[in-house]
Amino acid sequence: MTIRYPNGRKYTPSSQSNGPRKVNHSFGNRGKTLEDELNETNEYYVSHGIAVIHKKPVPIQVVNVNYPARSAAVITEAYFRTPSTTDYNGVWNGKHIDFEAKETKSLTSFPLQNIHEHQVEHMKRVHEQGGIAFLLIHFSSLDRYFVVPYEYFVEKWERKIAGGRKSITLGEMEEISIEIQAGFNPRLDYLQAVRLWLNRLQKEATERQEIE
Amino acid sequence: MTIRYPNGRKYTPSSQSNGPRKVNHSFGNRGKTLEDELNETNEYYVSHGIAVIHKKPVPIQVVNVNYPARSAAVITEAYFRTPSTTDYNGVWNGKHIDFEAKETKSLTSFPLQNIHEHQVEHMKRVHEQGGIAFLLIHFSSLDRYFVVPYEYFVEKWERKIAGGRKSITLGEMEEISIEIQAGFNPRLDYLQAVRLWLNRLQKEATERQEIE
Repeated sequence: MTIRYPNGRKYTPSSQSNGPRKVNHSFGNRGKTLEDELNETNEYYVSHGIAVIHKKPVPIQVVNVNYPARSAAVITEAYFRTPSTTDYNGVWNGKHIDFEAKETKSLTSFPLQNIHEHQVEHMKRVHEQGGIAFLLIHFSSLDRYFVVPYEYFVEKWERKIAGGRKSITLGEMEEISIEIQAGFNPRLDYLQAVRLWLNRLQKEATERQEIE
Repeated sequence: MTIRYPNGRKYTPSSQSNGPRKVNHSFGNRGKTLEDELNETNEYYVSHGIAVIHKKPVPIQVVNVNYPARSAAVITEAYFRTPSTTDYNGVWNGKHIDFEAKETKSLTSFPLQNIHEHQVEHMKRVHEQGGIAFLLIHFSSLDRYFVVPYEYFVEKWERKIAGGRKSITLGEMEEISIEIQAGFNPRLDYLQAVRLWLNRLQKEATERQEIE
């Protein structure tokens, strides 16, 4: 089977989406973290009834808690644990959405060491259950954002496992992803990229049926 | 529109499900928490490729962290935050699953104060997006478990908001839920209850179409 890549076609948020949209001036990162940007986006989705997607809390192992009289319990000893799943999930239009967001300062490639093996395993399982699994990758020095479907990401991951390169080059990233641009509201409209991606999959499936 | 309740029909896990199933001896609670039982169940679902459902980490506000040389970061001051969503979610067979699990020691009713308003709001949103939202309620003194679809739960919740009773009686619980029994493996097969519930909805929809 030949896999057809999305060819890195650039997705620009349309001005037809619901809700107010201001003129798209220059939107630099302005010191916001990717997490801030995604939280804003997800709040927009929830408040406009578009989707219900949240960041999961950071997993923390609590070891000791004090319960002072008349005030809130204080955790006095705890440790960060390694997440065993992706950071973001939820539901959109009847579909389960599951993704991990990562940033790199590199100008040329995305290092795969940013992703844990159990996160890839988790995305595989979600994909097999009919959920939509992807990575959202920010090249912060270039201020470019890429939505990478799990099905394409996993090829690069398996190349690494097989002893190949330990990163995805920027050129490859453009080939295997849908690029999105930061806007005003929603800040990072990743669901539009997912919609584009699903439409393309459906169109390809229809074309295959017509040929058969 | 008349709402037809599931009539509290009791669901008993069939012996035809995948994977090994031992003879169902008497399964008391044996000191396990509901969370333990659900973690076991979810591990079973994941390891058998049935579903990918996890408990979300408890949300914690980290205030102070020490970074000792040559060892793991230690959180030395942190506070528990109120969860804004349900505790469990994931994907099963292309469907988004979202639920909250609660226990009561009461023999006669489930107090609604166990549920936060923002959790009900969250379940409403999930339901509107086509996800499957429900409560799993354990009457621990009776060792009975009930899967309550959001659509039925919300009626009792709204009755409380309107100034009515602040709990769901055991009799009502039997009417608006699918009861499940604790088994060996999976420990609490709540997805079988969800399947039963979806089949019933579909059957009713078909019957309505035939009448029209």
